[in-house]
Amino acid sequence: MNPRFPSSIVQPESLLHSTKTKLYQAEYFTQILDHFNYHPQSYQTFQQRYLINTKYWGGAEKNAPIFVYTGNEGDIEWFAQNTGFMFEIAPHFKALLVFLEHRFYGKSIPFGGDKEVAYSNSSTLGYLSSTQALADYATLIIDLKKNLTAEDSPVVVFGGSYGGMLAAWFRLKYPHVAIGALASSAPILHFEGIVSPYSFNNIITQDFKSESENCYNVIKGSWKLIEDTEQQPGGFDVLKNSFKLCKNDSSVGSIASWLETAYVYTAMTDYPTPSNFLNPLPAYPVKQMCKAIDDPSAGKDTFAKLYGAANIYYNYSGSATCFDLNDDSDPHGLSGWSWQACTEMILPTEGNDEKSIFPPSQWNYSDRATYCKSAFDIVPRPNWATTEFGGQEIKRVLKRFGSNIIFFNGLRDPWSGGGVLKSISKTIVAIVAKKGAHHVDLRFSDKDDPEWLRDVRRKEIKIIQKWINQYYHDLSH
Amino acid sequence: MNPRFPSSIVQPESLLHSTKTKLYQAEYFTQILDHFNYHPQSYQTFQQRYLINTKYWGGAEKNAPIFVYTGNEGDIEWFAQNTGFMFEIAPHFKALLVFLEHRFYGKSIPFGGDKEVAYSNSSTLGYLSSTQALADYATLIIDLKKNLTAEDSPVVVFGGSYGGMLAAWFRLKYPHVAIGALASSAPILHFEGIVSPYSFNNIITQDFKSESENCYNVIKGSWKLIEDTEQQPGGFDVLKNSFKLCKNDSSVGSIASWLETAYVYTAMTDYPTPSNFLNPLPAYPVKQMCKAIDDPSAGKDTFAKLYGAANIYYNYSGSATCFDLNDDSDPHGLSGWSWQACTEMILPTEGNDEKSIFPPSQWNYSDRATYCKSAFDIVPRPNWATTEFGGQEIKRVLKRFGSNIIFFNGLRDPWSGGGVLKSISKTIVAIVAKKGAHHVDLRFSDKDDPEWLRDVRRKEIKIIQKWINQYYHDLSH
Repeated sequence: MNPRFPSSIVQPESLLHSTKTKLYQAEYFTQILDHFNYHPQSYQTFQQRYLINTKYWGGAEKNAPIFVYTGNEGDIEWFAQNTGFMFEIAPHFKALLVFLEHRFYGKSIPFGGDKEVAYSNSSTLGYLSSTQALADYATLIIDLKKNLTAEDSPVVVFGGSYGGMLAAWFRLKYPHVAIGALASSAPILHFEGIVSPYSFNNIITQDFKSESENCYNVIKGSWKLIEDTEQQPGGFDVLKNSFKLCKNDSSVGSIASWLETAYVYTAMTDYPTPSNFLNPLPAYPVKQMCKAIDDPSAGKDTFAKLYGAANIYYNYSGSATCFDLNDDSDPHGLSGWSWQACTEMILPTEGNDEKSIFPPSQWNYSDRATYCKSAFDIVPRPNWATTEFGGQEIKRVLKRFGSNIIFFNGLRDPWSGGGVLKSISKTIVAIVAKKGAHHVDLRFSDKDDPEWLRDVRRKEIKIIQKWINQYYHDLSH
Repeated sequence: MNPRFPSSIVQPESLLHSTKTKLYQAEYFTQILDHFNYHPQSYQTFQQRYLINTKYWGGAEKNAPIFVYTGNEGDIEWFAQNTGFMFEIAPHFKALLVFLEHRFYGKSIPFGGDKEVAYSNSSTLGYLSSTQALADYATLIIDLKKNLTAEDSPVVVFGGSYGGMLAAWFRLKYPHVAIGALASSAPILHFEGIVSPYSFNNIITQDFKSESENCYNVIKGSWKLIEDTEQQPGGFDVLKNSFKLCKNDSSVGSIASWLETAYVYTAMTDYPTPSNFLNPLPAYPVKQMCKAIDDPSAGKDTFAKLYGAANIYYNYSGSATCFDLNDDSDPHGLSGWSWQACTEMILPTEGNDEKSIFPPSQWNYSDRATYCKSAFDIVPRPNWATTEFGGQEIKRVLKRFGSNIIFFNGLRDPWSGGGVLKSISKTIVAIVAKKGAHHVDLRFSDKDDPEWLRDVRRKEIKIIQKWINQYYHDLSH
């Protein structure tokens, strides 16, 4: 199984498609290729994209705040359009909004902006790393503030998923640049030796089990059935017909992973209101999947049930007539994550114990290393992230160090097992939503949002307000 | 004028020369060339030296502490031998002592240990940077603790001068590795836009003025006299005789900088007891210099007075028969600093205002840049250090962030102008000694140490004890 990315896998609200030109404008900043060495090649520059919205800003003369999204592994427009929270609170805070694109993603491609060159091998991809991205952000923010004569404006960073990890790390590493961070669904503890490798899939298991025991049992029992069918004469056609695979799809070897992908991403984005991922999803999509599986009209036909569930994820709009298992389109430009997962982001998610909804399997670092060798001719550095950013004994380490971080986690999010779920100090606080999914708090609000979600956002606003008030107090004393 | 280095310019106590083999033993650690990118070259390794003393250690089973010196720009043995404080407090704390050598110095030379290769050009020297050094330290400490099964032993970092900057930054960037830092004479604010470029030389000026107004006036007036003499026919011989230059010294163009060097380093190491630098010095050497200048027996012969002062610094042992202005020997291996001063350590020290004891001159970044271009074909990054480590508005930034740092400064130390001189919070504290010089607190104690110095050390021990107690308390709760 390929390393999964902890991506913010929610697409623009359709609402936004029509208005997105008004949400922000794109700018570019000349960024240095390598901040940490002085090799001649490190002096090469590239154009880093950022999106800016000045509509609500109170201005430099009032030291009005700057809210910065620390972009993750994809096109920054996609993240901006899925971080409605920042747009919605900007008027209250009179905040300038800035969304920073992560190097090697979207339009922020080194080596002349040529993605083919930048992604060609480890001599070019080598500059794609989290520490370089954080240094990009620090450099850009300091320069932007200077250009706006807004040196005294407080900066608060926001991010979800890997972007949330970056936001938390940015506050920890660059406290002189950001006064606080909202790190949403940031699995900063999802590293070997800290999190259980079964955690990720056990949370998915629990998500389905919580809807219905039958749903869990059907899915859990299905893997052997699929395997057995594959091995029978004519089994290929049975599966092809059951799952409406397109005619040109000559291999069904990946049917299991095609289904697994649907379960994983649906669990991750199990939002209480309709949303968009790679395809549209209904509210509470895991419940809908289990409804399809539990549907008595499907009788004993397990494949029909699974198809009904998969259809929620792959074809909620109803427009697909067949499915292409080999579809590797990447509309949000997330492909760089596989490099990051082969260098420093060694997040063990692939373990499945006996109660997992997926077939039993062991997390095995050497499998990852073998994959990385063949894919990129690179040796991962599995201990680097915790060496650079910590994580072990985080409560003890940060109890008397650092401040002003909110860690939000929704417990239905498989990544939440690697999140900070307990407050560490008075100012490094955890907000946990039992029913929440992957950075649900950062999404645009909806009239149908449940009360617990409104409450999470209210808490976050209150805390951010406190940081800013304290900053102004310190500034004037 | 060449960029000066903020070096720990104190040599081993003669006492130690005889016993130094017992102070520590040398070990080596395989370190990666570049922590922050994944270019194939970054995977090259080198042998990093560290010195270890286990004599006083209470052991892993008792979680006894580990005191780590974060090495600066020279041979680590030299720093270890001049950081007697750590040896002296180790028995009380039952501490393991470790002295980490900075990459590119001493025996910690990348590129096969071949200094000629490592120092050949920016493609190799490019990996000499403060951030890489800090990452080396984190990597080594984590590995060492693991090997000792001492994961729960608290680490406190110590450093003086640039090593003190590294110690403070290490605590700020790697709080998960070190519970606290004693940053002695660490000019972390000595960057453009924070410190006045006149600060450094004004402190030296004040040091001499505080001894006698006449001393100050004689030195201040001497620069023109030297220049005038140089331009007179036969002036060369006058100077050569006056300053006992060696016969092969055919140029006297550097007599001014030869004298300036003596004043600068004597001011920096104006210790209350006899010490060793490149040559031995008496107690209170600035006072001794001024005594020579004020000596009535020299009459009106300014050069004789200056010679007497220079003789304190260059020939206190009395063994020199003549002086070689072109002597560029580098017994402590400090030469890498000129690279660091051309990349990120852009510390403005070269300004002299009208009251300076040195000839008037303006700090000019472009002079530095021009020098760096010609010396290394490199463009400095003058804003990088403050981007990465902060410094601007440090009181506001760290008031509610971070903990457990002691900033010691002696106000007679020219670097103290770039030090943290006021406590920032309850746990980020400044200790200031009006009569102190460059990291005097870290030196071996002496029976003739003044009370204020004993007091400084007592305060430091008390604070470090508090960190450790608190750590053990947290560990057991």
